[in-house]
Amino acid sequence: MRFRSDNASGMAPCVLDALTAIADRADSPYGADTETARCRELLAELFERDLHAFLVATGTAANALALGSVAGPGTAIFCHEHSHINVDEAGAPEFFTNGAKLIALAGENGKIDAAALERALQPLARGSVHQVEPKLVSITQPTEWGTCYAPEEIGRIAAVAHRHGLSLHMDGARFANAVAHSGCPPAAISWRAGVDLMSFGATKNGALAAEAVLFFNGCPPGFARARKRAGQLLSKGWLIAAQLNAGIEDGDWLRLAAHANHMAGSLARRLSGIPGVALIAPVEANLVFVRLPGEEAVAALRAAGAQFLVSEWTQGTPVLRLVTSHATRTDEVDSFVELVSATLGA
Amino acid sequence: MRFRSDNASGMAPCVLDALTAIADRADSPYGADTETARCRELLAELFERDLHAFLVATGTAANALALGSVAGPGTAIFCHEHSHINVDEAGAPEFFTNGAKLIALAGENGKIDAAALERALQPLARGSVHQVEPKLVSITQPTEWGTCYAPEEIGRIAAVAHRHGLSLHMDGARFANAVAHSGCPPAAISWRAGVDLMSFGATKNGALAAEAVLFFNGCPPGFARARKRAGQLLSKGWLIAAQLNAGIEDGDWLRLAAHANHMAGSLARRLSGIPGVALIAPVEANLVFVRLPGEEAVAALRAAGAQFLVSEWTQGTPVLRLVTSHATRTDEVDSFVELVSATLGA
Amino acid sequence: MRFRSDNASGMAPCVLDALTAIADRADSPYGADTETARCRELLAELFERDLHAFLVATGTAANALALGSVAGPGTAIFCHEHSHINVDEAGAPEFFTNGAKLIALAGENGKIDAAALERALQPLARGSVHQVEPKLVSITQPTEWGTCYAPEEIGRIAAVAHRHGLSLHMDGARFANAVAHSGCPPAAISWRAGVDLMSFGATKNGALAAEAVLFFNGCPPGFARARKRAGQLLSKGWLIAAQLNAGIEDGDWLRLAAHANHMAGSLARRLSGIPGVALIAPVEANLVFVRLPGEEAVAALRAAGAQFLVSEWTQGTPVLRLVTSHATRTDEVDSFVELVSATLGA
Amino acid sequence: MRFRSDNASGMAPCVLDALTAIADRADSPYGADTETARCRELLAELFERDLHAFLVATGTAANALALGSVAGPGTAIFCHEHSHINVDEAGAPEFFTNGAKLIALAGENGKIDAAALERALQPLARGSVHQVEPKLVSITQPTEWGTCYAPEEIGRIAAVAHRHGLSLHMDGARFANAVAHSGCPPAAISWRAGVDLMSFGATKNGALAAEAVLFFNGCPPGFARARKRAGQLLSKGWLIAAQLNAGIEDGDWLRLAAHANHMAGSLARRLSGIPGVALIAPVEANLVFVRLPGEEAVAALRAAGAQFLVSEWTQGTPVLRLVTSHATRTDEVDSFVELVSATLGA
Repeated sequence: MRFRSDNASGMAPCVLDALTAIADRADSPYGADTETARCRELLAELFERDLHAFLVATGTAANALALGSVAGPGTAIFCHEHSHINVDEAGAPEFFTNGAKLIALAGENGKIDAAALERALQPLARGSVHQVEPKLVSITQPTEWGTCYAPEEIGRIAAVAHRHGLSLHMDGARFANAVAHSGCPPAAISWRAGVDLMSFGATKNGALAAEAVLFFNGCPPGFARARKRAGQLLSKGWLIAAQLNAGIEDGDWLRLAAHANHMAGSLARRLSGIPGVALIAPVEANLVFVRLPGEEAVAALRAAGAQFLVSEWTQGTPVLRLVTSHATRTDEVDSFVELVSATLGA
Repeated sequence: MRFRSDNASGMAPCVLDALTAIADRADSPYGADTETARCRELLAELFERDLHAFLVATGTAANALALGSVAGPGTAIFCHEHSHINVDEAGAPEFFTNGAKLIALAGENGKIDAAALERALQPLARGSVHQVEPKLVSITQPTEWGTCYAPEEIGRIAAVAHRHGLSLHMDGARFANAVAHSGCPPAAISWRAGVDLMSFGATKNGALAAEAVLFFNGCPPGFARARKRAGQLLSKGWLIAAQLNAGIEDGDWLRLAAHANHMAGSLARRLSGIPGVALIAPVEANLVFVRLPGEEAVAALRAAGAQFLVSEWTQGTPVLRLVTSHATRTDEVDSFVELVSATLGA
Repeated sequence: MRFRSDNASGMAPCVLDALTAIADRADSPYGADTETARCRELLAELFERDLHAFLVATGTAANALALGSVAGPGTAIFCHEHSHINVDEAGAPEFFTNGAKLIALAGENGKIDAAALERALQPLARGSVHQVEPKLVSITQPTEWGTCYAPEEIGRIAAVAHRHGLSLHMDGARFANAVAHSGCPPAAISWRAGVDLMSFGATKNGALAAEAVLFFNGCPPGFARARKRAGQLLSKGWLIAAQLNAGIEDGDWLRLAAHANHMAGSLARRLSGIPGVALIAPVEANLVFVRLPGEEAVAALRAAGAQFLVSEWTQGTPVLRLVTSHATRTDEVDSFVELVSATLGA
Repeated sequence: MRFRSDNASGMAPCVLDALTAIADRADSPYGADTETARCRELLAELFERDLHAFLVATGTAANALALGSVAGPGTAIFCHEHSHINVDEAGAPEFFTNGAKLIALAGENGKIDAAALERALQPLARGSVHQVEPKLVSITQPTEWGTCYAPEEIGRIAAVAHRHGLSLHMDGARFANAVAHSGCPPAAISWRAGVDLMSFGATKNGALAAEAVLFFNGCPPGFARARKRAGQLLSKGWLIAAQLNAGIEDGDWLRLAAHANHMAGSLARRLSGIPGVALIAPVEANLVFVRLPGEEAVAALRAAGAQFLVSEWTQGTPVLRLVTSHATRTDEVDSFVELVSATLGA
């Protein structure tokens, strides 16, 4: 019953195959290898667009490098108050931007609201030297609450951002789950909706360590060097590329995410049928937030071996955050549902 | 005839075995996994000492994080003018230290001389607010010239550093090659000689991406968070740990390096017998620097498919930098020696 | 009718006298002069305590250097959402801290509430590497809303901060106005209430450019160098010291602030008697916030030559921010009150 | 016998007059005042060119902000090994550039040689992501050795810089002394010779705290905000402007510097006639470097009340650095010459 994080699962079979295939590969170092070249082609096909792709080892690095490519000292980045970049990256965004300011916005279900963004931008929009310069809006897709932005929602945010000269970044650490949910092509919920640059994650989706920064509207000057300076230019770049290629080439990418979403949907549907359990956000990806009647239930579930986090974003009785992954098994869902049911005496 | 870099070789067989073994591993994320715990034990055994070890994905990150753990804004780091941190990391040391100053020292064969260090320290030693605060000395073992510091040489540098309150860092991206050369235990050319912290590399020695920062005298407060902030805390940390463990557990670590050294020695011995070729530094690890009579020879070697870099640190006729690795084959050495011989009409 | 800012007034007569007195002064450079030594003595007397004082040229520098002395990369600073450091210093706090994160708290009348601070601290208090490290709370005295913290209010905030190991900073750009309001000695609303370090301003109170960073509990190592590195160590330091000494030596410091407060009180009392004008915050220092019925009134006042800012922190009809200073004349207050009265047809 | 620094002298009479004249000045804050506007006009006239001028309080700030306007993270700045920015600003250049790397070049009499610059640029010129990006060359006029670059010397350096796409910065903390020496108009030894931006100092030349950053070829975007962020935007900007205007308006600027140069020339001529004293650099501004036979002489001079620094840039017997200023009196020169003569038993 491992629902702590999709980070805690191992590698998908296709990833091991890929690593085995490159076992004795010797190639040009620093991203000039053939596997990396292939990766750029596959990503361009997947997104139906010319793009610039830079591979990195972690999601923190992907996000922070992406933010730093647009926002520097004395600038501002707007984000949701619960966004990973705001609360879970130990100041990496501030570090990689050399001191940009993250301005946190409230918003239901983890989403930024375009009107709230517009209001927050007003005081900075006049360009005074006394205020930081707004440069970037960052949204997460799916959000940290497991909800997905519809193309129109992204479009409204992008419209505000672009009207004020800001770029729109998307943290896509779980982007595959959003694509699997929406049924749209990746382009529809990214660049076609107005996203300028994004972090594209595979680590939570069956890779061991494989993330990419994607630029849809040209590569900021100096980005290649910024990646090197950040210690994210692997000498044997084919390690990351092979993992990404493994997922994309034959569509496993989407199948793995769909499985995780399916497990989350099942978990949500069945848990919400148990008296005393309340679902507190729509389940549209691989995260489930359920409220329990009290702390005793939480302790009992943990004592029985269930793994999960308790949300810090809610008041009142405890809210569990349950995360499914490509490796979540039906019997884990069964066991957990039964455990909750038994615990709550239902 | 691949002598461009040990970075350009693939993974050693033991590394693939290790990755296969962790294929469907699900474990605690962010370095709390069993493979990482094992890695810390193995490193402590290897160095015969309690130590703090932090795994990271690249040598740039290992060096820059290590430097940043001691040296911050307004401080100075002394290093050799040809050191990797000074010339080949795109400003990563300055970035991770939030603006420390690297003070470059000349020195034969890539080594810092203790007396030159003492002289350079003098103007900063009085502690004036007008000067940067000296905090760190960094040496490379083996050096970028392929030479190895003897324990006494390190000891003399450490004595100067410690007398002035500075720490001594060692860039050990190719540390295995120095150990293989010296025949000493790792401790003898690291902490026992006065090294306080080091970067320990495996990527150039058969891993795909596996480096570690080692602290011999306590972990600087905040380092764990600094690694996270730098995007170097892998969620599936066992990826890196497994590669390191693979090498250390059965001694492949040293055997792979010894092979590379042996190939370099053979290359040096045979090339230096060719009229017109001059060895310009002692060959004590896996790097060979040879001077050729002119640019035409370089062009001819390249045209024939040989891969290598030409040194920028020398004046006059071109000096080739030849790097061997765990994967260098005897026939590559043979072919290259013959090619040089033929090219120079010998 | 100059109510735009206390920054826009000239120098008090005592300041010119002081500058004239140092006209041909030659002294030791970089703060080793006799005037600066005298300043440290005067500040220690004023605050009834040994302290460390560092003179700087601007309030932005005083605040940002003070913050940076405690909070570095990967740390968090809690402050009011309307605080100067959060909204009016163009990212200086982020710059001088090398990327600390400011966490903005809501709170009535510009004040932080101790309970809200406690709640905001909770998620960071467990010390996880994934979150920034909380280091500092910063309050403004008087606040940007012109209200003053009572000693007990500061004490409650200090208690929360200190319990979690954080320091308490006070932005005292207008500290004289708070002292004049409270009738307390400076110590009572600073270190005795739990403030660890503060910015002490004189520029808004009749100096030309004179601010100080005061440390009540020891000087952070490296601060003297940090000030130099920030370009705030004046070679002829007596310029700043003389301005501060001029105010403190004979008590003009407090008389100038009391005058400004008196003008604000008078303005507030008389404006609030005009139908259609609503005072929206207690007037306890030299700032007055009044709501007008609509934009036309604002335009009319401006057209008539009145100078003021319109608050960006309020919704609905416009709220004027009126600031008085040591140089505000009774007739300016009279004229403005009459103008408002006439404009609103009262 | 005050020859320690031109920083240690007081204000010139014209500066006090100017401060008196602005005594009760109330004006628009943050550099929007009439005195600052006048200053920009005067500087444009002085340099015979449209330019952008930003006033700041210290030379460290002027230099560091100027460097930071062109060079950011991951870039390189070439400078003389003895330049103020390299050795005497406590890391301010690294701080304001967010971690640029200063690359120190040797060169006689404190001057950079164009050919040496070209050689140092070579390894960085190919634009590899592994190296820092060269952005800026900085020279000091007059140099820290008291020598002046001729227009042609600047021109040769500018040619190398511009050919590689770098900008040329001039640290003109003592620029007046160079103009006084050369007899050229300011333009001839600045922008007409290829300087793109410069620090223009008045503090060492009779002001209390007045420096400016001048851009000859357009203002870098964001510079106004960068100055604010650095705490160098004074609210009462007329304080600095008035000091600069006082010097420029009636030519006192040049007369004060000429006096300092004259005193230095006299000192040099007379000292060099004393057996045992050797002038070790041409005296072209207000600095004199003389070698004495031994440490005893230094101690004796100090014991007799003479103030000066001993150079750290030289080996062998001690070299005094003697600095004259606008306030140096003939009788101080006389006394010092006699003292040296008597001390050396001449």
